[in-house]
Amino acid sequence: MLDALFKPRSVAIIGASNNPLSIGHIVMQNLLDHNFKGPIYPINPKSKFIKSFRAYTSVSEIPDEVDLVNISIKNTLVPYVLEDCGKKGVKFAIVHTAGFKEVGEEGLQLEKQIVEIAHKYGMRIYGPNSQGIQNSDPSVSVYANFTFVPMSPGNISIVAQSGGVGETLKLHLYRIGKGIRMYSSFGNEADVSMNEIIDYYGQDEETRVIMVHIETMKDPEGFLEVASRITQKKPILALKTGKTSEGTKAVASHTGSLIEQETIADVIFKKSGVLRFHSQEDMIDAAVAFSHQPVPKGDRVVIVTNTGGPAIIAVDECISAGLKLAKLSLKTINTLKRLVFQEAIVSNPVDVVATAGPEQYGGTVEALLKDSNIDSLLLVFVTAPFVDCEGIARKLGELGRSSTKPVVCQVMTIEKWAEVIRLIREGGIPVYDFAETAARALSAMTRYGQFIQKMKPDFKKYRVEKKKAEDIIRGQKGKDKFLPQDVVFELLQRYGIPAVKTVRINKEEQLEKAAEKIGYPLALKVDSEKVVHKSDAGGVALDLKDKKELIASFRKMARKFAQYKPSFIVQKYMVEGKEVIMGAKANEGLQPTLMFGLGGVFVEILKDVQFRLAPLSSEDALEMIRSIKGYPILEGARGEKAVDTDKLIEILIRLSQLASDFPEINEMDLNPVFALERGKGAVVVDARLRIIR
Amino acid sequence: MLDALFKPRSVAIIGASNNPLSIGHIVMQNLLDHNFKGPIYPINPKSKFIKSFRAYTSVSEIPDEVDLVNISIKNTLVPYVLEDCGKKGVKFAIVHTAGFKEVGEEGLQLEKQIVEIAHKYGMRIYGPNSQGIQNSDPSVSVYANFTFVPMSPGNISIVAQSGGVGETLKLHLYRIGKGIRMYSSFGNEADVSMNEIIDYYGQDEETRVIMVHIETMKDPEGFLEVASRITQKKPILALKTGKTSEGTKAVASHTGSLIEQETIADVIFKKSGVLRFHSQEDMIDAAVAFSHQPVPKGDRVVIVTNTGGPAIIAVDECISAGLKLAKLSLKTINTLKRLVFQEAIVSNPVDVVATAGPEQYGGTVEALLKDSNIDSLLLVFVTAPFVDCEGIARKLGELGRSSTKPVVCQVMTIEKWAEVIRLIREGGIPVYDFAETAARALSAMTRYGQFIQKMKPDFKKYRVEKKKAEDIIRGQKGKDKFLPQDVVFELLQRYGIPAVKTVRINKEEQLEKAAEKIGYPLALKVDSEKVVHKSDAGGVALDLKDKKELIASFRKMARKFAQYKPSFIVQKYMVEGKEVIMGAKANEGLQPTLMFGLGGVFVEILKDVQFRLAPLSSEDALEMIRSIKGYPILEGARGEKAVDTDKLIEILIRLSQLASDFPEINEMDLNPVFALERGKGAVVVDARLRIIR
Repeated sequence: MLDALFKPRSVAIIGASNNPLSIGHIVMQNLLDHNFKGPIYPINPKSKFIKSFRAYTSVSEIPDEVDLVNISIKNTLVPYVLEDCGKKGVKFAIVHTAGFKEVGEEGLQLEKQIVEIAHKYGMRIYGPNSQGIQNSDPSVSVYANFTFVPMSPGNISIVAQSGGVGETLKLHLYRIGKGIRMYSSFGNEADVSMNEIIDYYGQDEETRVIMVHIETMKDPEGFLEVASRITQKKPILALKTGKTSEGTKAVASHTGSLIEQETIADVIFKKSGVLRFHSQEDMIDAAVAFSHQPVPKGDRVVIVTNTGGPAIIAVDECISAGLKLAKLSLKTINTLKRLVFQEAIVSNPVDVVATAGPEQYGGTVEALLKDSNIDSLLLVFVTAPFVDCEGIARKLGELGRSSTKPVVCQVMTIEKWAEVIRLIREGGIPVYDFAETAARALSAMTRYGQFIQKMKPDFKKYRVEKKKAEDIIRGQKGKDKFLPQDVVFELLQRYGIPAVKTVRINKEEQLEKAAEKIGYPLALKVDSEKVVHKSDAGGVALDLKDKKELIASFRKMARKFAQYKPSFIVQKYMVEGKEVIMGAKANEGLQPTLMFGLGGVFVEILKDVQFRLAPLSSEDALEMIRSIKGYPILEGARGEKAVDTDKLIEILIRLSQLASDFPEINEMDLNPVFALERGKGAVVVDARLRIIR
Repeated sequence: MLDALFKPRSVAIIGASNNPLSIGHIVMQNLLDHNFKGPIYPINPKSKFIKSFRAYTSVSEIPDEVDLVNISIKNTLVPYVLEDCGKKGVKFAIVHTAGFKEVGEEGLQLEKQIVEIAHKYGMRIYGPNSQGIQNSDPSVSVYANFTFVPMSPGNISIVAQSGGVGETLKLHLYRIGKGIRMYSSFGNEADVSMNEIIDYYGQDEETRVIMVHIETMKDPEGFLEVASRITQKKPILALKTGKTSEGTKAVASHTGSLIEQETIADVIFKKSGVLRFHSQEDMIDAAVAFSHQPVPKGDRVVIVTNTGGPAIIAVDECISAGLKLAKLSLKTINTLKRLVFQEAIVSNPVDVVATAGPEQYGGTVEALLKDSNIDSLLLVFVTAPFVDCEGIARKLGELGRSSTKPVVCQVMTIEKWAEVIRLIREGGIPVYDFAETAARALSAMTRYGQFIQKMKPDFKKYRVEKKKAEDIIRGQKGKDKFLPQDVVFELLQRYGIPAVKTVRINKEEQLEKAAEKIGYPLALKVDSEKVVHKSDAGGVALDLKDKKELIASFRKMARKFAQYKPSFIVQKYMVEGKEVIMGAKANEGLQPTLMFGLGGVFVEILKDVQFRLAPLSSEDALEMIRSIKGYPILEGARGEKAVDTDKLIEILIRLSQLASDFPEINEMDLNPVFALERGKGAVVVDARLRIIR
């Protein structure tokens, strides 16, 4: 519970000072300026008074209870004052002071020490090296933060790893006259964590939207758990920065490669329904829409305009963002035709033309709101000097207030018609400067709507031979190596994943029997953990039509790889099928990541692969398959037949099940899997699997 | 010359009225509000006075000369007043009135009629169905337009096909306190054209940046000519809307398919160095940067910040936009280390930390401006309450004034530090709300800088046998058909484009001789204009190793296509080489479009092709090749050898030369071309060519 942090009944400021440039002074001033609803106790051993307040030399002197302290004294002194705070029964200490983990080993030790001291007394540390918190709830009105953007009440809560980014987010909301609910930038996250804060916002009734800025995810597992729970009630919008390798270097420290960090963040966002944004502005614009508007039930948008050009931009942007132009019902079309001027265009976009007054523009929106073919509305409105613009705005505001569909608006106007913007906003309709922005905000709402719709996904669990699979894996444990291919194939078969007919042999004499068992044409492959890229190394011979070809290939390979004393794999040679690849990778503390892609150039050159976290629902698996750029190939491009997508979905789910059941499977690649035509299934042709511990 | 339009010495308003909601009234009010520097003559046959002005019943009554009239009377009356205007010697008529081409055939006739009347008197029509023009030049200060955004002087000129989009652009500049130079939204473009207006802006000394909005390009040839001339002196920024097929439908009328329109617009922009944007906001943000800042000499940017997080965003965005992080010189590093606080990070980004004052922040920027490893600077500046922010801003402003490198800035602040923004802007440094925006504006400037650098491209012209090619084409003229493949190959050879050894035959008896001439392995292909997709139809047999296989394939094909009485092509079968495709397509009134792509799935599924207008420089050709997504394959992915890119460039240029020399070549596809390894050239394996007229 973070109540004593975000709703403190009293605050002490350790490091309060009369120097207006000091953090302590600024925090105190912010608390005063925002009329904090509890007592403030400045602590300063040298000054008797701080501003008009009687100062205390230490927390222990304060005659009343203290929920929260703000600390901005020298780093090495922090442990001492924390002892005092602990003894006093302080609940939370916001440590603004820098000079901890971020400066190296010595700082790290100091950071561990202050957390230890705090925990000894049941106190929590927020920071160190942190900006602070804010809560605009009128019953508290706490601005325990040294930044400068004035606070007013709203329903958007922000948590930002970077104070600078947090400040930018607050600032933009402030500029457009929007308030916030709660704010926090948590610094080094030594104790109170981002996930706890998100969880707290999630439980806060007044918070309708949460904006999150992340540089590095400290506890991905916790984030997934918390976010998955909250997104069912309210949207979480996220900005993850440090995306390029240059950007990552700029992020203080990191483990793992960029691609891994990016992939993990992305699959976690997808799994938990967190909406990811790629610019601060896009995220804020969407937050503003969410803050007032209902979530759309579907992706069918109608655009209404009184000026042509911007509507075309709105169309371009809506379509690019994946929305669809709604087809108006016949009834709506008839209503509109009676309503609008002759020059108007009753289509989608609906162009009511610049001469439209409240009756035409407002009436059009009213009719469209009733049309069940429409999920959302994007309005473009220029204050034409020759019509009753305020009348239109008043009507739109009224409609906005009672609408169950989201409505967003681009308004082109100047101060003269400030009332127009006020009236529209008063109806809860967000007003944007550009059609593009309005369209993007709407598309974010639609994405969230789609997530909510499929919130009860179909998590099929196949019956598999788990016990037998366990025996296979147990037999290989403790080796940290790639398993022999025939062992991998057996494991796959226990989980119902079909692999091509395969026999492992060690010497030439076994060839004939294997060939007999499988039948020509055959493929011959070297099988040794020393040879990882078999094809490149000359360890694969395909389409061997008879005994003669088989023996010749075997001898050549046996000579080539003699030093490794390898085994060999004899397989049925597959002629047909589209090559796809699937994979799974274990994640520390998280379910494994599943991968799907098209083989060959698609994966190697274009990195055309999709990742998702296990467990996979059939919707997840289908979405993975459909999201690759090369999907048309699987659908049957150039008159070819479509592949058996249902079987691919099944194999992906079974793979997900296998990887989840055995965390000791470190990585698994089915490459290639041959996808046959619809109804004929798919079959794994080659596979690698590594277990650890 | 459009002087009498943009710098009229006097304006008459036909349709002037005392009704404040009428266009005539609004235009007159706009002229008055902006202190138009010449006489205004209201024309109204029914009112004696319009506002405090004596009204005239017709233009002919005006005792003085009239340069410009604004017309907003009923469409059918326009021809009559134009006769009067013509006789009076009026030079330009802005027709605001709608009800012309845009309403159908009758309107189109009326439109033609008014242009005829005007031209009879040497008068020009602007519009009809147009918003009007503006020119903030203090010697004129003309606002002959019925819109509402107040005008103030600046150096950005705007021309917008859509009045609504034009208004949005003006509005945003107005909001951030930037003026404009000239503005126009030209409506139906019956006479005065967009290209003329762009040309006029180009010649205007005070215009530093031109913003263009286009829905459909009426005269692509003219645009190319004008834009190519102007971009050598100043940047043209363009927004082309109606990009999706839905968006195109929303654009009133259009010829040709969406892909054609998009491709033509895109190749024209590329050829002429016009910078294309995909959102209004991005275009405006870039225009603001261009309006004050010098163009960068290269792509090496340095980021300076006093707060961490936003700098990471700046890095991400710069890198994504193709910029590079500059490597500071040793000298700069040493200077900075002496200058900044100990906690500062001297790297790129340079983090001077929040406690940096004018000396640290300003000094850092000063040192970086001197470093020849750096082409541009992006500053992130939060007004930390504990430092002398105005001092920093003053210093930045000073440095901005004398800088020869572009500097852009994100400032995070509120009204309290309004002076900070003023001081920085006064130094010509654009101030943005978001790091992303600053980065994108800088990247647009860098793109323009790169265009300027390569302004004198190397247009190689190969010696070719043009005369002989002409004979070949003349022999085929008047047929509107695909030429036989051996004829196409001969034509290519006249232009030095190597094709695979090929013999055309008609009957089986000729097979053996052809095989002897070429040598096995062979490929056999049906050759008939009735069979367009040869492979799909079974008209291609590859890798024929001997006479037996050749004859068998021939017989099968001869049976299959007997109805078409086809010829056959016997070719050397190519084993090696990467498949690429090249093509050329004639454009009405323009040079042909050249195409390059990788064969197979790349072109068919991923549409991974590049287009450019002829003539091609070697830089153009190289850029085409490098810009395809599959380029790594040509470079030699997975340890394969790189292909002969030099030869591909040469073939592209020769193809460009051939297509330019013979406009009767309607389309030409070299598909596939086999690119061999470096030094070994490339060879055309199949080709189609259609001539018309």
